Amino acid sequence: MNLKEDERLDYLLAENLRIIQSPSVFAFSLDAVLLARFVYVPIQRGNLLDLCSGNGVIPLFLSARTKGNITGVEIQERLYDMAVRSIEYNGLQNRLNMICGDIKDMPQQLGFGKFDVVTCNPPYFTTPSREEINPNEYLAIARHEILCTLEDAVKASSQLVRQGGKVAFVHRPGRLIDLITMMRKYRLEPKRIQLVYPKLGKEANTLLVEAIKDGSPDLKILPPLIVYNEADEYTPEIREILYGE
Amino acid sequence: MNLKEDERLDYLLAENLRIIQSPSVFAFSLDAVLLARFVYVPIQRGNLLDLCSGNGVIPLFLSARTKGNITGVEIQERLYDMAVRSIEYNGLQNRLNMICGDIKDMPQQLGFGKFDVVTCNPPYFTTPSREEINPNEYLAIARHEILCTLEDAVKASSQLVRQGGKVAFVHRPGRLIDLITMMRKYRLEPKRIQLVYPKLGKEANTLLVEAIKDGSPDLKILPPLIVYNEADEYTPEIREILYGE
Repeated sequence: MNLKEDERLDYLLAENLRIIQSPSVFAFSLDAVLLARFVYVPIQRGNLLDLCSGNGVIPLFLSARTKGNITGVEIQERLYDMAVRSIEYNGLQNRLNMICGDIKDMPQQLGFGKFDVVTCNPPYFTTPSREEINPNEYLAIARHEILCTLEDAVKASSQLVRQGGKVAFVHRPGRLIDLITMMRKYRLEPKRIQLVYPKLGKEANTLLVEAIKDGSPDLKILPPLIVYNEADEYTPEIREILYGE
Repeated sequence: MNLKEDERLDYLLAENLRIIQSPSVFAFSLDAVLLARFVYVPIQRGNLLDLCSGNGVIPLFLSARTKGNITGVEIQERLYDMAVRSIEYNGLQNRLNMICGDIKDMPQQLGFGKFDVVTCNPPYFTTPSREEINPNEYLAIARHEILCTLEDAVKASSQLVRQGGKVAFVHRPGRLIDLITMMRKYRLEPKRIQLVYPKLGKEANTLLVEAIKDGSPDLKILPPLIVYNEADEYTPEIREILYGE
């Protein structure tokens, strides 16, 4: 196992997997974990695709939920390389495959409508002026809409998923209206939404949305997911997701 | 005080007001109470409008939160008449005014862009076939999109509210995508959403949305509102809203 610079080998406890992380390059957030748990997955087989994969956290998590094939797409070679090494370390290279490329090119490269499920944890922030942007280019590209806007991600997802297939996004609540409007524009009908609240009595800080390509309108809003209890400890639900307890 | 048929004079406890209800004609729901409490109101003055007013429950609730003028619009004469008598009973006729008419005619009748705040608790259900519809015409019109579709209500609200004014709707979560899409179509930008969950661990059953006419995109999702605790009693938040405790 070859770790580079400040990389470390972290545990994905509930899944009994390990993942290469680096504070200066990319470390996954709770949001990725929540998306990998939220999305519908076919258990026995199927083709799953994760866009904006970073260090491959979502493909790795999904591998514990499905026996299907999972493809991850990441544009930054340094992050792609971390993902590839994590997949090999876990011995998952027979059904997890990473592509280093631009999600906008994937419909041409991988084919239209070839996936049963598409997930995406896109950059959350619109691109600020050059002065405000994170000077760490790795983090700036992962967090800001520099190489990929929300519309790029929704459009590519819609092109890649088959009719009746599922597309799931995680984002900030502030972009709910944009996300939903764009999904409908690209024939993705939102069917399940879950809001994540840091604590009871606090505003939601994370939004999970699953849509069906050409689905009929009929939305469910799932039970609220509360992250911390009043003593600032993880709630049982979150402990179960993170640690499998 | 003149009560007709099966009408009764109920208390709005937290507001110290009384309201005429009738199980066979119209009785307000928790949703109306939640909307009247959720919406932004100017305290000292202003023009507020409530569409699809039923027995005037929202104007009555709002009268406890603002000193402004409140107009209610109700198409069913029988319900309009209940609202008028309730307003008189509470001595609020100097600043609460009911109109019996079609909301689609109100922009012409009341003027475009004349209101600071517009509220609406519209009929929730798309109109089923003639066989399935509620044989009680009062309840059918109040609950089904027979005389007023969701789009009619959003369009009229947008025409009636001033630029920068607020429009608040209550609806079922299943219509979130339709409601948001229509609001954007009519230049109403959703700014605050609150989900109401009957209990922790249950799916949301009510949706509150407040938009600003020509507002900039920036949505907040407020803390979850939980109606019942694990013992099936109202939570303290709901008791406070209903009983002022």
